[in-house]
Amino acid sequence: MSRQEIPYKIYLKESEMPRQWYNVRADMKNKPAPLLNPATHKPMTEEELGAVFCDELVKQELDDTDRYIDIPDEIRDFYRMCRPSPLVRAYCLEKKLDTPAHIYYKFEGNNTSGSHKLNSAIAQAYYAKKQGLKGVTTETGAGQWGTALAMACSYFELDCQVYMVKVSYEQKPFRREVMRTYGAKVTPSPSDTTAVGRKILAAHPGTGGSLGCAISEAVETAASKQGYRYVLGSVLNQVLLHQSVIGLETKAALDQYGIVPDIIIGCAGGGSNLGGLISPFMGEKLRGEKDYRFIAVEPASCPSLTRGKFAYDFCDTGMVCPLAKMYTLGSGFIPSPNHAGGLRYHGMSSTLSQLYHDGYMEAVSVEQTAVFEAAEQFARVEGILPAPESSHAIKVAMDEAMKCKETGEEKNIVFGLTGTGYFDMVAYQKFHDGQMTDYIPTDEDLQKGFDGIPCFPGNEF
Amino acid sequence: MSRQEIPYKIYLKESEMPRQWYNVRADMKNKPAPLLNPATHKPMTEEELGAVFCDELVKQELDDTDRYIDIPDEIRDFYRMCRPSPLVRAYCLEKKLDTPAHIYYKFEGNNTSGSHKLNSAIAQAYYAKKQGLKGVTTETGAGQWGTALAMACSYFELDCQVYMVKVSYEQKPFRREVMRTYGAKVTPSPSDTTAVGRKILAAHPGTGGSLGCAISEAVETAASKQGYRYVLGSVLNQVLLHQSVIGLETKAALDQYGIVPDIIIGCAGGGSNLGGLISPFMGEKLRGEKDYRFIAVEPASCPSLTRGKFAYDFCDTGMVCPLAKMYTLGSGFIPSPNHAGGLRYHGMSSTLSQLYHDGYMEAVSVEQTAVFEAAEQFARVEGILPAPESSHAIKVAMDEAMKCKETGEEKNIVFGLTGTGYFDMVAYQKFHDGQMTDYIPTDEDLQKGFDGIPCFPGNEF
Repeated sequence: MSRQEIPYKIYLKESEMPRQWYNVRADMKNKPAPLLNPATHKPMTEEELGAVFCDELVKQELDDTDRYIDIPDEIRDFYRMCRPSPLVRAYCLEKKLDTPAHIYYKFEGNNTSGSHKLNSAIAQAYYAKKQGLKGVTTETGAGQWGTALAMACSYFELDCQVYMVKVSYEQKPFRREVMRTYGAKVTPSPSDTTAVGRKILAAHPGTGGSLGCAISEAVETAASKQGYRYVLGSVLNQVLLHQSVIGLETKAALDQYGIVPDIIIGCAGGGSNLGGLISPFMGEKLRGEKDYRFIAVEPASCPSLTRGKFAYDFCDTGMVCPLAKMYTLGSGFIPSPNHAGGLRYHGMSSTLSQLYHDGYMEAVSVEQTAVFEAAEQFARVEGILPAPESSHAIKVAMDEAMKCKETGEEKNIVFGLTGTGYFDMVAYQKFHDGQMTDYIPTDEDLQKGFDGIPCFPGNEF
Repeated sequence: MSRQEIPYKIYLKESEMPRQWYNVRADMKNKPAPLLNPATHKPMTEEELGAVFCDELVKQELDDTDRYIDIPDEIRDFYRMCRPSPLVRAYCLEKKLDTPAHIYYKFEGNNTSGSHKLNSAIAQAYYAKKQGLKGVTTETGAGQWGTALAMACSYFELDCQVYMVKVSYEQKPFRREVMRTYGAKVTPSPSDTTAVGRKILAAHPGTGGSLGCAISEAVETAASKQGYRYVLGSVLNQVLLHQSVIGLETKAALDQYGIVPDIIIGCAGGGSNLGGLISPFMGEKLRGEKDYRFIAVEPASCPSLTRGKFAYDFCDTGMVCPLAKMYTLGSGFIPSPNHAGGLRYHGMSSTLSQLYHDGYMEAVSVEQTAVFEAAEQFARVEGILPAPESSHAIKVAMDEAMKCKETGEEKNIVFGLTGTGYFDMVAYQKFHDGQMTDYIPTDEDLQKGFDGIPCFPGNEF
């Protein structure tokens, strides 16, 4: 189909929206390794996981055989309100780059949470409500996940308790207010509402907190309150399952115009967006039906896939959560203070880690000033102010488009634009003022993190 | 057509998007009164207006006979990137209110400027570029218009100089950074870059500035710099013309499903959104083809239509701009400091003022705590965080829906959701913390503003 016939934005009709999530694990020969009980090093049972997570979500977490899982009507109703998201043809960017490549992006930022996180938040809230729970707890750093969960809980009239890293709570009061608008209770972490919080406050008075500490407080609260469970916005298999709606819509939109992507690019922190975007395409590759290049883009300052170890590690710095086998920088790893955006998790989804390990996916790391340069160029021609996280994918999509310019190839490049940067203007300001710097950890820096990866038989790396 | 068959969101196809703007003045028997030269009290000539505004825009400003005006291809290309905006069926709000009314809203917030302002900004930037100008100047208060203009100028590679009210510049650094991302030069007003700015700084050291002062600085800069013109985001006839794209899309979407609105509601500051939304429907009413109720909603603290005078007045507090005949509170009127949102302009579009004066439109005023209550309720069920301005229309749409509940009428209510509230979280915080107050000016308060309306023969009120 010629260039002119493809519209700027492809919106699926409501009737064309996915009715089932796609579970990529069903098509993997090498399944992602199971979560382990940190005390026994044995696979977590359904019962053990049920103490922390909702029952139905535990089933989804452990299900690596069902290829498709029905999306309940109540969730589809919500998706109809916030979705479909547009698949955008980046005509203006192509023109600016003067590239023969055709660039498409799936834009997940046109909802009030500002990102794709809502796709899983609504599913997790639904199953909590269906189980008759009173509420859920979670942690949030920059606030995208907390905002999404607050919206989802408000929709299902579920109590929502968010532990927000204290330094973010103070520096990002607007994110906090959005969550409050949706009725969430937002507590700066560490707090005196939990034993772990009080312990940390006693040991480190005046600390700004960390994501690991906020996870520990959220898990403790969920475990100690009747009718509450803990929910998480990335890393887990269930999250990738829900996020497959991104990839399914993308594929349906491309199929309508007969477009076959050559390269699919996503930013990667814990893997929620990347996993969701590539899943249906990866399924085709795993089944030997088609071939695609998949590129995970991570920050050079937090390079879990490109420089991490493939091993069992703790999911949180508090070491209270199960062990997951993944590419990891060690649960004690924290990106240097000059790191502006998200994508700061020390590990990576077990599913994506396995796929990367098995050679189905590539990974590259990029430095943040180059990422913000790409973000600004994109914003000016495409009219969307991207989140710093999303801009990692933009940077590599532009790089690949420029390679096409050299070779003259008309490749179809698809990338995930996960969200908007309205709450990240402090980082943009640093960039404008020339105060943004890059940082690549040395091997010695990384070794400190690796030293914290637990040692036990079968966990050699 | 039954309830179920209407989707949550109606998106026009690109091929269905408007190719012409609609000029409501062509269908008005009583044309809006012409702008007057403040010195001579004679109608501003094309030549006089051309010293301040772009030539093509002057023509559009003065054209009250051509019903349709072609949208140039270059502008339609941009519209294809940022539009169409969805017409949303508020199923969740209807359910929450338990009303038989069918509620629809045209959502203009899904672009980086966060509002409908972009529709006119791109047109004004295009005509400036086409005229071979180097750049444009403008003022901005809260920053929606400035952001939109920065985006538009970036697209056409035009210099953009924004005078931002100093108190906003300091209190809303994120808006400023969005504008900088798009390459705009943002100057806090009053500044030492203009004669009028220096004069005000000398008289009032440490002042936070005002919109009127920022207008004066922007006009002075445009007039004194070779290759520059001044542009404005509301009030003017040309702005209503460009914004008619909102109403045309709304009408096309409703027509596809055979929906005839009973009531059309819009918030009203200077009239840019309201005028754009209602124009094509108003045209049918003016031509006697259909009847609709139109409701303008304004803040009780800045009630130009409901309590103002219909008279010639200055468009700016600096009294350097032409006189416009409009409903006005006097160019010296400033809403009380507790007024949180926009919609703080002292006057109203001449076109809308005339239509209101002739009885084609109703107007109501609402208090801001009630507006924020409606905003929060809307956000929680519809998943969109509305701008305070837009929430005025939400409030009255909800009121009308509740009246339908009493009477059992299945009315079709359409309102304009002009934008998002991401940069208004300080106001939301005040509301959450119970610190938001209401204010209704007394007759004595208003009289002070009326005293500033110029007295000359024919301007009795």
